[in-house]
Amino acid sequence: MPAAIDFYFDFSSPYGYLAAEQIEDLAARHGREVAWRPILLGAVFPQTGSQPLLNIPLKGDYARRDMERSARLLGIPFQVPAKFPFMSVAACRAFYWLQDQDPEKAVALAKALYREAFAEGRAVDSAESVVAVAGSLDVNGGKLAAALNDSAVKERLRKEVDAAISKGVFGSPLIVVDGEPFWGHDRLEQVDLWLQRGGW
Amino acid sequence: MPAAIDFYFDFSSPYGYLAAEQIEDLAARHGREVAWRPILLGAVFPQTGSQPLLNIPLKGDYARRDMERSARLLGIPFQVPAKFPFMSVAACRAFYWLQDQDPEKAVALAKALYREAFAEGRAVDSAESVVAVAGSLDVNGGKLAAALNDSAVKERLRKEVDAAISKGVFGSPLIVVDGEPFWGHDRLEQVDLWLQRGGW
Repeated sequence: MPAAIDFYFDFSSPYGYLAAEQIEDLAARHGREVAWRPILLGAVFPQTGSQPLLNIPLKGDYARRDMERSARLLGIPFQVPAKFPFMSVAACRAFYWLQDQDPEKAVALAKALYREAFAEGRAVDSAESVVAVAGSLDVNGGKLAAALNDSAVKERLRKEVDAAISKGVFGSPLIVVDGEPFWGHDRLEQVDLWLQRGGW
Repeated sequence: MPAAIDFYFDFSSPYGYLAAEQIEDLAARHGREVAWRPILLGAVFPQTGSQPLLNIPLKGDYARRDMERSARLLGIPFQVPAKFPFMSVAACRAFYWLQDQDPEKAVALAKALYREAFAEGRAVDSAESVVAVAGSLDVNGGKLAAALNDSAVKERLRKEVDAAISKGVFGSPLIVVDGEPFWGHDRLEQVDLWLQRGGW
């Protein structure tokens, strides 16, 4: 079995959402699995001097138009939550906590959280909102709520984010295929070609 | 005749170069002409809080890899000049000065300047380097050298850059099709589709 594709993303990243809606099918076409790796861009931005995309003058206006236009082209339901950008730390902790028990369900949770945020337009920033989405997947709300404040879970997330930064991850989505990094939803086509050709 | 495609770029932009190598063919497939509009990203960056791409920690390392990889995929000769980023004000002034006399030759000059920078890997930042490239197109070097210091030419460039910023241009390449902006070399495919479908 060839190595899984690393899929780094922030739950508050619109382009991450668009990639999340496509990455599994793309990987499957090449017999690959996807390692879902949520991160916190807020921890990366101080390193790159960047800031949330939609807050940037000129570029932010364009980005909103671009993400809506790209979603329409792909036929993916899309809206930016009224509260945006939003804190995605609770969503990340929920993912890694669930992954340790049920990796498949963790991926289902990631997709559900993304759809809540960018298909339904409701920020998944609070513990309550994350617990509610997880509840639709039969995840025990009491246990999850406790996990979100568990220091071991917090530490797990910190390690995942630090490991991502140490590997040069600086944005969302960022996809790594056999050591080769591709940044941005608009690089999925190159990811597809790279998998097909094994590089160029 | 439908409106020309506006092609905004900075002569110091590697992705602008990649787009410049493709934009004329793309436009021609849809019966369009291209309005070449060099700008100065240095005048835009203070507005967006951005900085030259390759100078950004993490993102810069990735960008260099990405532009080389994209060029290889496209079969376009590519190298980053040793001196990079470089000042592109002389190249811009030369373009607009020549455009007022011979628009077709100005486009040929733009392509030649880009190839000097990113195919040959020699920065076209100095008046001497710009005059040398223009000389290969039989542009009078003495007249061009004088034009680069002409206050009317300087003012012409300022107006072009101000007009671009007032239209929301914030990056390179940025392509506008019938009022619809597309940022980045990796949006050429959407530009192609937009021209084909008239939007979506």
